[in-house]
Amino acid sequence: MTHDPHLISESLSFEGTVGFYSHHSSACNGEMKFAVYQPPTAKERPLPVLYFLSGLTCTEENFMIKAGAQRFAAEYGLILVTPDTSPRNVGIVGEEESWDFGTGAGFYVDATQTPWDRHYQMYTYVTTELPALIHHHFPVVPNRQGIFGHSMGGHGALVCALRNPDRYRSVSAFAPICAPMQCPWGQKAFSHYLGSDRTHWQTYDASELLRISKFHSPILIDQGTSDQFLATQLLPDVFQKACEAVDQPLELRLQPGYDHSYYFISTFIKDHLRHHAIALNA
Amino acid sequence: MTHDPHLISESLSFEGTVGFYSHHSSACNGEMKFAVYQPPTAKERPLPVLYFLSGLTCTEENFMIKAGAQRFAAEYGLILVTPDTSPRNVGIVGEEESWDFGTGAGFYVDATQTPWDRHYQMYTYVTTELPALIHHHFPVVPNRQGIFGHSMGGHGALVCALRNPDRYRSVSAFAPICAPMQCPWGQKAFSHYLGSDRTHWQTYDASELLRISKFHSPILIDQGTSDQFLATQLLPDVFQKACEAVDQPLELRLQPGYDHSYYFISTFIKDHLRHHAIALNA
Repeated sequence: MTHDPHLISESLSFEGTVGFYSHHSSACNGEMKFAVYQPPTAKERPLPVLYFLSGLTCTEENFMIKAGAQRFAAEYGLILVTPDTSPRNVGIVGEEESWDFGTGAGFYVDATQTPWDRHYQMYTYVTTELPALIHHHFPVVPNRQGIFGHSMGGHGALVCALRNPDRYRSVSAFAPICAPMQCPWGQKAFSHYLGSDRTHWQTYDASELLRISKFHSPILIDQGTSDQFLATQLLPDVFQKACEAVDQPLELRLQPGYDHSYYFISTFIKDHLRHHAIALNA
Repeated sequence: MTHDPHLISESLSFEGTVGFYSHHSSACNGEMKFAVYQPPTAKERPLPVLYFLSGLTCTEENFMIKAGAQRFAAEYGLILVTPDTSPRNVGIVGEEESWDFGTGAGFYVDATQTPWDRHYQMYTYVTTELPALIHHHFPVVPNRQGIFGHSMGGHGALVCALRNPDRYRSVSAFAPICAPMQCPWGQKAFSHYLGSDRTHWQTYDASELLRISKFHSPILIDQGTSDQFLATQLLPDVFQKACEAVDQPLELRLQPGYDHSYYFISTFIKDHLRHHAIALNA
C-alpha cells in the first residue's frame, strides 16, 4: 500500500515542472522523498518514465540540479524520477556515522540484517513501491520504463534491470560500481545489510547476476579514465568480462580524462537520454 | 598588482576544463576565489571571455554546477569566468550575520564605509583586477569581454556594463536587481557599504546610471513572472522605463511561471550564451 505523495516544492524547468515530494513508504517503513521532472508534453498525454538512481551521499535533488537532464527529457518526452538514496532519520544507531554506509548509502538492496532490515528496503522501494506510486499519480505509461544511475546508483540500475528485464526497456550507467562483492564499498555495505552469506550478495552484484540473467538490449556505460574510484571501487573490466562470457551486449565507453563528478555526467547526459528515448519511444 | 592564481581543483567538462582557483586580491586585501571554464578550442587559440556574477549567498561554484552553461560555451567557443560574490573570512565583526549583506553579498560595489572598505572592493575586483589576472593567465582576447549575472549579480553585470561600455561588448541578466536604491536588499547593502549620501548610491544603480550612460547594444534580461522577489526586490519595470526614457535598447522577456532558481536560469542559459557569442565573435 502506498500513501499519496506530498508536494514540497515545484519549479518550472524547460516548460515542464520539477517537483519534490515526500510520502510514507511501506517498504522503508517511514518517510521517503523523491523528485519528478514532467516535460511539457506530460500535460497532453502519458509518457515513458526514466528512473535515475544517485550515488553515495546524494539525495533526490542532486541529479535534478546538476545533470542538465531536463533539457533533453523535454526534447525527448521523458518523465524523470529520482528517488532518495536511503531512508533518513529512522533512529538506527550509527546511521549517520559513515558517508558510504547507512544514510545516503542504501545501496538499493533489501537489508536482511538487524537493525537495518526494518527500514533499508531500497530494492523493493525502487523496483516496486515507487513505480506503483508514480503510475498512480503521474501521467506515465507503466510498461515503458527505463533506469539509469551513477556510481552506487549505477550499480543499483544494473541490478534492477538484470533482475527485472521484463520491467525495464533500457538501462545505462555513469561510472557504476560494477562488481560490489569485489570492492570495499560493496563489501562494507553488503556485509552489514545482507550478512555474511555471500551467495545472497550475488543477487545484488551485476557481474554475478549475468550468470543467471541477461538484459534484452545493449547496456550503455560511460566511465571516465581519471575517475579516482575507477581501479579500487568501480571495476568495469570485471563487468565487461562477465558480459563477454554470456554475450550480453555492452557499450562500455571509456572517456579519457573525465572524473567521477557531475561535470562528467552532464557532458554525456544527452547520450544517455537518447539511448533511453530510442528504447522507450520505440 | 595581482598574484598568480592557485589551482584548487580541475574537472573535464564538455572536452574543456572547469578549474577552481584562489589568489591574493590586492583590491579586496585578501584571498579571493574564482572559477574558469575553458572550452576545448581554448587549447588552440585565444577566445572571448564572458564573466558571470552570481547572486546572494552564492560562491564561484554555483553557476558552474547548476547552470548548464558549459555545453554552450564549448559550442560557441567562450571562456566563462565566475568570481565569488564577496570576500570571505576577513575578520569583520558581523560579516556572517546576514544572508543578504556581508559574506556572500558584496553587491559588486567598492565600499567606502568602515569596516567594509578595507576588503569589500568588489567593483574594482570584477571590472579591473580579475580581468587583468585572467588576461595574464588564460588564453583570452582582452578586448572581447561580455558580462552577465543573476539577481544581485544581474545588478552587478548591468552596473559594470553601463559604467564601462568600452570594456564590455555585451551584457545580459537573469532576474536582476534593477533598481537597488528602491528595494530593501539594495538599501540595506548601500547604506552599510556606501554610507548615507544617496548621490553616491546612484553610481551603482542601473536604473539611475542610464541618465548619464548608455550601453552600445541591446541589453537582454529574462525575468520569471512567478519569481518571489519580483515585485519587492527586482523591479524590472523601473529599469524598463529608464531604458525607454533614453532610448536604451532592451529586450526584457517576462517568462510566465518561472521562479528565481537555477531551474529558470538553466532553461534560458543557451539564449544568453548565444546573445553574448554573437557580440563577442563578431
